[in-house]
Order: sequence, then C-alpha cells, then structure tokens
Amino acid sequence: MRPTQIDCAREGKLTLEMQQTMERENIDEDTLLSRVAEGSLVIMTREGCPSIAIGRGASTKVNVNLGTSAVRIDPDAELEKVRIAEKYGADTITDLSMGGDIRAIRASVFENSRLPITTVPIYQTVVECGMKDLTEGDILSYLKAHVDEGVSSVVLHCVEKATLEKLKGVGRVMGMVSKGGSLTSVYMLTNGCENPFIEHFDEVIETLRKKDVVLSLGNTMRSGCIHDYRDGAQLMEIETNVRLAKRANEEGVQVIIEGMGGHIQAAEIPEHVNLYKSRSAFPLFVAGPLPTDIALGYDHIAGAVGASMASGAGADYLCYITPAEHLSLPNPEQVREGLIAFRIAAHIGDSMKYGVSERDLLLAQKRAHFDWGGQIKLALDPDRPGDMCPMTGPCSMCGEYCAIKIMGDYLAGDE
Amino acid sequence: MRPTQIDCAREGKLTLEMQQTMERENIDEDTLLSRVAEGSLVIMTREGCPSIAIGRGASTKVNVNLGTSAVRIDPDAELEKVRIAEKYGADTITDLSMGGDIRAIRASVFENSRLPITTVPIYQTVVECGMKDLTEGDILSYLKAHVDEGVSSVVLHCVEKATLEKLKGVGRVMGMVSKGGSLTSVYMLTNGCENPFIEHFDEVIETLRKKDVVLSLGNTMRSGCIHDYRDGAQLMEIETNVRLAKRANEEGVQVIIEGMGGHIQAAEIPEHVNLYKSRSAFPLFVAGPLPTDIALGYDHIAGAVGASMASGAGADYLCYITPAEHLSLPNPEQVREGLIAFRIAAHIGDSMKYGVSERDLLLAQKRAHFDWGGQIKLALDPDRPGDMCPMTGPCSMCGEYCAIKIMGDYLAGDE
Repeated sequence: MRPTQIDCAREGKLTLEMQQTMERENIDEDTLLSRVAEGSLVIMTREGCPSIAIGRGASTKVNVNLGTSAVRIDPDAELEKVRIAEKYGADTITDLSMGGDIRAIRASVFENSRLPITTVPIYQTVVECGMKDLTEGDILSYLKAHVDEGVSSVVLHCVEKATLEKLKGVGRVMGMVSKGGSLTSVYMLTNGCENPFIEHFDEVIETLRKKDVVLSLGNTMRSGCIHDYRDGAQLMEIETNVRLAKRANEEGVQVIIEGMGGHIQAAEIPEHVNLYKSRSAFPLFVAGPLPTDIALGYDHIAGAVGASMASGAGADYLCYITPAEHLSLPNPEQVREGLIAFRIAAHIGDSMKYGVSERDLLLAQKRAHFDWGGQIKLALDPDRPGDMCPMTGPCSMCGEYCAIKIMGDYLAGDE
Repeated sequence: MRPTQIDCAREGKLTLEMQQTMERENIDEDTLLSRVAEGSLVIMTREGCPSIAIGRGASTKVNVNLGTSAVRIDPDAELEKVRIAEKYGADTITDLSMGGDIRAIRASVFENSRLPITTVPIYQTVVECGMKDLTEGDILSYLKAHVDEGVSSVVLHCVEKATLEKLKGVGRVMGMVSKGGSLTSVYMLTNGCENPFIEHFDEVIETLRKKDVVLSLGNTMRSGCIHDYRDGAQLMEIETNVRLAKRANEEGVQVIIEGMGGHIQAAEIPEHVNLYKSRSAFPLFVAGPLPTDIALGYDHIAGAVGASMASGAGADYLCYITPAEHLSLPNPEQVREGLIAFRIAAHIGDSMKYGVSERDLLLAQKRAHFDWGGQIKLALDPDRPGDMCPMTGPCSMCGEYCAIKIMGDYLAGDE
C-alpha cells in the first residue's frame, strides 16, 4: 500500500510535496514533519500539479466553488470560472456541479486547471440515482469514482441521526442550510438509518487512503442567519467531526474540518475559532462567515469582513462568497469579485497571524514614487486598475495638490 | 449670542435636535444631555434638515466624500454623487471640490441634498488665492464664508510646527498623505509660521460657535501605508488634537477628532481606537482604515474590513473609501460601491458595539420563506439584487435541491 503524506511524516520521510511546502511556506523540516503527522498541516496533492498546504504555519488559502446547478447549466460559463480561479489566484477549486453531464463537466474542470479539485460526491449521487431512491451502495460507489478520477479532496457530511433530532428542537429561523448536509440527511430520514459515511467510515478511510485524498468534514449544522448561531446541534456536530477527524488521522488520512460557515455575529468570530482550535489541531475551513444578513448583493464584502476576522483568529482555509450569494449561481465576473474579496481577507488574516508582508511595503514604495506599473504588478488583481490608473504623476483625485508631491521636497530635506 | 447644543445641554435644556436624537438613537434624556455636554456625542445640524448624531451610544455613521478635483471637473457627475449619497443612505456629505466654480458647485450640493455638509475650507482658499500667495486673512475669511453658507462642519488641519519637524525625522515610506494637512503645512513652511488655525484658535472658535458648526480636527499625520503606522508624529498630533478639542468643547463648540485614517495593520486597529478613546471622549472619525496596501482597485473592500474592526472597537464615524481610491476621482457608481461597503462596515461595527439588530432577523425570516420582495426591502441596497434575484422559490444556486426547502417539512415536524 502506497504510504500517505501522514505515513511518511510519521516515519520522518520528506516527500516531494513536503519539500515544496517548506520552500513556499517557509517552514523548517522538523516542524513540517510533526505538523503533517499530527494533522495540523494538510498537503492537498494532485497528480502532476503543484500541491497546496493548508493549516498551521501556512498562509491562509482560498477556495473557489463553481459548477452547474440543477437549473443553470452552462458548461462554458463554468470553464470560464475555472480560468478566472486560475488567473486570479485561487488556491483550490471545488466543483459542485449538479446539472448537465456532471462527469464530463468535472473532466473539463480537471483538463483546464492545475489546482487541487474538491468535490461533494453526494451531489452527483443524488442527481443520478434520485433523492429518494439512492442506496448506500450508490453513495459509496460515487465516492470511489470521484477518488479514482483524481480529486484531491472530498467533502462528506457526517451528520449523526442524534444531531438531526437535536436540530428539530433548537428552533432555528433558517433550519438547515447545507446542501450536501441536507441531501445526506434526506437519505437518512428516508431510510430511517444512521449516516452512511459514519456507518462505513472504515471503508471511506480505506478509499481515501489509497490516493491520499483529503477528507473534508462538512458543516451540515452551520447557521443560516446570525440569530441561529451556535446551538446544541452545532456543538454536537463539532464533537462528531473532531472524533471522526481523529480516526482518519490515526489511519493516515489527512483531514480538514469545515466549521463556522454561514452566519455569525462579528463579536463571536474569534471566540468560535478558538472553540474549534481548542478541540483539535486540524485545519479549520470556513465559508465566510457572514457577520450580517442584510448585505444582499454584497455578501462578498460582508464575507470578506468575517473571513478577515476568522483567519486573523486562526482559521486556515476560506471558502469564498460571491456577490450572488443567496440570490443565484454566480456568473464568471462575480466569481472574480468574490475571489479577490477573499484573497484580500486571507492577506489581512495573514498579517494578523504572521505580521505585515513585504509585498505591502514594496507596493507602498512604488506608490510613493508614482510608479504605477510597479504598483499594478504588486496588486492582488493587476487587471482591475485599468482605466482608473493614471499614466504618470499624481492621480486625478488630487492632481497638482497631491500631498506626497507637495510635501516631498520638504520631507526629503531639500527645503 | 445663540446658545449651542453644548450650551443647552449644560443648562439641561433639551433642543429639538436632541429630541430627534433621543428617538432615533434610543438614548434617554439624562444620558443624552450629559454626553452632549461633555462632547462625547455630537449633533450635526443643518438648517431645515434632519440632524445627525455622531458619537457615544449612537449608531455608527458614514460620510461620503465628493466634489471636483483640480483635474476632473464635471459638476453633473458630482450632482449624481450627491443623489447617490442621499439615495443609498449616507449620513453626511463632505464636498471637497477643488476645480471649477467651487462656490457654485457647493451651492448645488446644498440644493440637492438634505444631509449635513462638511467642507475643508483650506482647499478653496488655496485654489483661489494660490498655494504660495495665500495669507492668514484669506484662510480665516474662507472659513467664515463657509460657515455663513451653512455648512454643518468644517475640517481644519491643526498640525503644529513641531510636529512637522518631527515628521521629517521619522523616515516614513509615504511621508504626508493628507491633502488638507499638506496645504496647511505648505502655508506654514512658506511663511515660517505656526499653524494659522492654532494661532487664531479663539477666532476660529468664535466663528464656529455662531452657527454651532462642528469642528472636525483633521488627521494630517495619518499613515499612508501600513509600514508607516504610529510614529512620533502621529502621537504628537493626537495630543495636539485632544488639547484643542478640549478648548473648543469648553467654549461650547462641538468637536470630532479625525484619527487613524489611512493604513494600519489589522491587529493594531482595536488597540489604536483604545488609545484615542483613553485620551478623550470626543467622537472618533476614521477614514478606512486600510489594513493592506495591495488591494488596488478594491480598497473599498479592504477599507470595509478595517472600518468594521475600527467601529466594532469604538470608532463612531466612518469616512468611506471607493474602489478608485489611490487611482482616480471616483465616478458615481464607485461612490455607490464605496458607500454600501461602508454601510456594511458600520452595521457590523454596530453589532459589535450594541448587539445584533432586529433587521438581520427580519431579513432571515423573509429568506426562510423565499419572500424575495421582503428581503429586498430590508437589504442595505434594495436596487442591487435586481436580475440576480429569483421571482419565487429557491434561487438558481440550488433549485430543487435547496436545503431549506427539502429539510423544511422535517424541521417543521411534518414527517
């Protein structure tokens, strides 16, 4: 059996992906080995492509969700989103396709990108087998098919029956808002059974081990509005996910825990990250969070605020939110808006975790000298300034009254 | 002499504007009187228009800067910005015009709005008298003219000579980035004199008292990049501004202190707000702050992150930043983008200061029932969802697989 990154780390063997990580993330060998072994740093790999490190000591990473929905099927638009994710600096892509030829769309996502690809296999299972007709066998066989196709990570919603019962009593405004979680729950309720991923967790682990696929434990119980924050159902899910994560880690499978997605009031974000981090060392993946519900059409901005606070407090991996969130499947331009907003958040979060970056200083030095080309090269989205950007000298906000310009001589000591 | 809001508060007399404030901000009479008297809550008034309260216990307010620059003179565009500021919920407008017929533009800003108007009188003084030729008399006479025209507030940059000297030695990357501050400094350096506003502070106070115009003490020493944060020059300016604010307050003139604008790393934002608040109780006005320098073309998003953190920590009044910041004078659409981003920040800040709002809950309740019209009415920008918004039922991201829909019956206890 091929050893996984965790197996190698436990034997003190440095893999090629670990070497890449050491360079990119500036982590020394011993630290890296111990973090990979304990699972606090996960290396997402994809055959023939660069790997991505997520977790303790690594820069905060950003995931882009894309894919058709059941009612919006435009494979060309999805490919355009893949190109945008690649071009504007996404770290990973999650293909959530539920419409059209799902397998063919996934194949073209693979073909047109070099980023690690995540899927939520229950989506395709439900679409192709029917929400009420699918079997345990279907669920496991789609999982295996995705792994065989070379995904880097899969999201499984391991919600327990008892947690579903708990949810019934907590009186939420928004109920359950996780799509994968609800599809898995419908299977459990239809068949009156426990969660199939938990029931067959050994088989799941064995499947993922074979290709060292990262297990992303889904956040079924996330809150759908800030008033639904942190009830008993959420707390039960944290315990379940931490328990399963430990089992997976023991078996040499890398794990990420999705937590704190959805909507949480700003003041509670750092505390919630601390709650997760106090329960386990596994990388924490957050969608948003959104610290307000009223930013309809601007949720990428509300999400960037929440994600800055969350990553600054220790979250490792951010799932972007686009301006179309809660409204529609995003178009390619909205994917770009969401991605850049979350790269800003990751960068701000990193400044809180690791200190201010050299890149900010370099850009400021170019700005001080009206070097517009130099600023653009260092900007998160070099294509955005475009027409706004002057060719030379001060910008059109100040013109000749530019403070930098009129105070430059004095401060340089020339007058 | 007509008593000011502070005079009345000190005599225990409730003004009409205080009554409006009590209702809008939900503050009881005694608390309001004592806060207005001590200056921790400022009421910006404009004849015949609603007043706006800024400071302790009031919701966080957002200011929109607009106006022509020396090189972009399009009065129609500026009027469109005024309409946008009114329509999309700005609390105040600052007219920074430096090009064209400045007085006529200001008159039309007044004509087309009902919001309190702030100006920076040194701008017009410099443009019309010449940067090197203007006199002390010019400076004071333009200030008086603005007050006579009915501005609600003026920004004066009260930088001291010693602080300018200090700035020379601190080795900043960006030097001085405050336009009003630099114009005032050029006058001081050209004439080898102290700051004219400080030299004639009694006359300034007398001028403002007459019409109860709020004195906004400008932030000449703000940092232009996150590496320039909090040096000796900044600290000296805080002391000067606090000292002058106390003098103004004693004389019955309301004061706001502009501080912490510009660029500050995220981790230091709460600490910096606390530093201000520990020095004085006067309302704190912040521009941004920007916690990163590399978000060129997206500074409204980086600014919204910083402003959320700052207002959450206690800042009272936010100056918006548009996507065109550092690049060009914003166009009307960019004004809208910046304004909404900062209204999101103010709302998030308020949730940290005062707890989660009822409005978030109401919107979530509409969302849970696919009431799109109801959501739009409660959204910060009701015009934005537009085409993105479905007419009925789940959105195009999920369609029939909407978690809320498929779990609704179970959670309602119907199955």
